[in-house]
Amino acid sequence: MLYLQLVAREHRGHTLELVPIKTRTITQDDDFLAVLSESMNSIDLQFRDGDVLGVAETPLGTTEGRVVKLADVPVSEEAAKLGGKYDILPAVAQLIIDEADEILGGIPRVVLTIKNNTLMANAGVDKSNVPSGYASLLPIDPKGSASRLRQEILDRWGVRVGTLIIDSRTQPLRLGNIGMALGVAGFRPVIDDRGRKDLFGNEMRITRRAVADNLASACTVLMGESDESIPAVLIRDAPIELVDKAFDSSAMWISPDECMYMAIFDQWRRGVTR
Amino acid sequence: MLYLQLVAREHRGHTLELVPIKTRTITQDDDFLAVLSESMNSIDLQFRDGDVLGVAETPLGTTEGRVVKLADVPVSEEAAKLGGKYDILPAVAQLIIDEADEILGGIPRVVLTIKNNTLMANAGVDKSNVPSGYASLLPIDPKGSASRLRQEILDRWGVRVGTLIIDSRTQPLRLGNIGMALGVAGFRPVIDDRGRKDLFGNEMRITRRAVADNLASACTVLMGESDESIPAVLIRDAPIELVDKAFDSSAMWISPDECMYMAIFDQWRRGVTR
Repeated sequence: MLYLQLVAREHRGHTLELVPIKTRTITQDDDFLAVLSESMNSIDLQFRDGDVLGVAETPLGTTEGRVVKLADVPVSEEAAKLGGKYDILPAVAQLIIDEADEILGGIPRVVLTIKNNTLMANAGVDKSNVPSGYASLLPIDPKGSASRLRQEILDRWGVRVGTLIIDSRTQPLRLGNIGMALGVAGFRPVIDDRGRKDLFGNEMRITRRAVADNLASACTVLMGESDESIPAVLIRDAPIELVDKAFDSSAMWISPDECMYMAIFDQWRRGVTR
Repeated sequence: MLYLQLVAREHRGHTLELVPIKTRTITQDDDFLAVLSESMNSIDLQFRDGDVLGVAETPLGTTEGRVVKLADVPVSEEAAKLGGKYDILPAVAQLIIDEADEILGGIPRVVLTIKNNTLMANAGVDKSNVPSGYASLLPIDPKGSASRLRQEILDRWGVRVGTLIIDSRTQPLRLGNIGMALGVAGFRPVIDDRGRKDLFGNEMRITRRAVADNLASACTVLMGESDESIPAVLIRDAPIELVDKAFDSSAMWISPDECMYMAIFDQWRRGVTR
């Protein structure tokens, strides 16, 4: 019976498995991988070659010193004004101004920013999952963080994995958070299908697949957003292209001219009518 | 050894599993579930209570008569003009006009539309994965399709599953396709965490999780976009809230006023400066 089940599993091909890794609360004094490894041992889970480790940005950033005490932030006049306009704490508004590459506009409690080529709420400045009176900022260099985690896993356990730093984001006109890849190491974040043939032999012209974003969303199903204490998910048997490289958001970016959303919204911005 | 592995698996809690179901090419004369069931038998895979079946919209729509011969589409003057402006075949432009609730604008080869409360390219009219000279349209009623599949699985096998009709979409400024839920039956597509406490006891104010979209993206990792012939993915052990209801896009929609993207872009559209 057991034998049959295992044979059946073999036949199923690329069953994708995602194992949530539940840990104690991670603080700034922790070694992120040491805490993970403790939890993995307790459920007899080991890294295997080809696994992808998905990591939530807040607990990772916490261990990288990216949690800021709001009372320590000197607030500029510009920040006080921005905070007043959108009902955001002045110190948080200051952090947003410091972190954002561009602020596009806002509605109550949230401003839309561009940071690292990516549209995001409040430039990633977040008061959830940190102690009261503090805010977390995104990891300074998500590509570097992904690369470092990958290398440490290789050094400690001799296993070649991919790594994925995950943030959550919303989509236009759509309710609820989905996952997004901030940085990736060990596999290609976007697979280019242009030139491939579809089922009927038509050549695909514009199709690329956001594999890292899709895997980030899959992890987000398990991680939750509140008190789940699941800072990482081990992804097994993902159909990815392994490479010995790391990637930041520029590898997952489309230029505003080629982006149907931004090209059109920019026409509105510039007052060009159709 | 085997025993130990199984015990370890138990301890891991909610390991999420996604099993791709590879089939022969599905035509309009096929019964969708009959083809799936054939493939599932061949890999000894059965539905279990609580599974979620993710289904790609194109093969499903094919069995629902949603593939149109372009030569049979009478082209209006408006469609000829739209097609000319954005380098889109006139018959395709006609289908887009017929399918879209609103056309917001365009760039070469793609127009941005709103259909069923959702932003999408070309109102879902797609020339890939159908024979040359044809285009596929989205299922007329994705909520109804999800509901019907769920009921048929209950009737044929006595098993209560969730179902999820999946399309792919792009995100602003972001390269590559991710998954999106068009219709859902048997589980809540969005989980509302507002009022829950985070790790540090702070109350969450605006967080909702797009579980159906995240699961759709997870399936998209396995389905691909070209000649993979994987029209469905069985999702096992997803942490979902089972309910005896079906949902369309209105359950996954946020109003433009509350949406940070659309509220700001609309300010641009109306010429309001910050």
